Amino acid sequence: MNNTNKAISIPDMRSPCPIANTLDILGDKWTLLVIRDLFAGKSTYSEFQSSPEKIPTNILANRLKRLTENGIILKTPYQERPVRYAYRLTDKGLSLGPVLREMANWGVNNIAATKAQIKMNL
Amino acid sequence: MNNTNKAISIPDMRSPCPIANTLDILGDKWTLLVIRDLFAGKSTYSEFQSSPEKIPTNILANRLKRLTENGIILKTPYQERPVRYAYRLTDKGLSLGPVLREMANWGVNNIAATKAQIKMNL
Repeated sequence: MNNTNKAISIPDMRSPCPIANTLDILGDKWTLLVIRDLFAGKSTYSEFQSSPEKIPTNILANRLKRLTENGIILKTPYQERPVRYAYRLTDKGLSLGPVLREMANWGVNNIAATKAQIKMNL
Repeated sequence: MNNTNKAISIPDMRSPCPIANTLDILGDKWTLLVIRDLFAGKSTYSEFQSSPEKIPTNILANRLKRLTENGIILKTPYQERPVRYAYRLTDKGLSLGPVLREMANWGVNNIAATKAQIKMNL
């Protein structure tokens, strides 16, 4: 099923607030790092795992599944026997660029010893 | 101690990436809702607890402490016997406006049944 063009539906919404609902999908320490990696050109499981934050494999699998179900990323096979998948951002995912850009700006301006390392088109 | 003007220091940084470091401070389902409430004019413990998401009291206390320690909010007593505190955004906190604004935009555009309810000056 392709949810790319459908609005995301959240069961048991905490409130109608769009910030609360966005946090229900993206509010943790890892999900937006996977999105960051996709913006940086990464697309495979092993590429995500090679990032310096060392995302645990169970968390990575869970986040890729959730992002796919919500139509934020799209999963397509790029190899058979064994089948392997590549992931890319949908329009919904690409529209997260400004969120990442503002987080990066805030981090650079307010947190010691951060630096923007990865070239991204946000 | 007043950390308002000092850059935030993160022990055991996962990487130098400003997005990863911002998520170490703000990456959960609740912290940015407290920031949202402060932008909306709320300032006291009971006002934060009255928000529709019903933040658990132990999480609220933990987040207010962490945000104060990192100089993102400032805690001042507004009443004695019993002493009660009010919180407000510092310049570091106010500079989170664009992050909230982009999250709200993304939620409104991509999640069903959200609506911007609270008047905020982001």
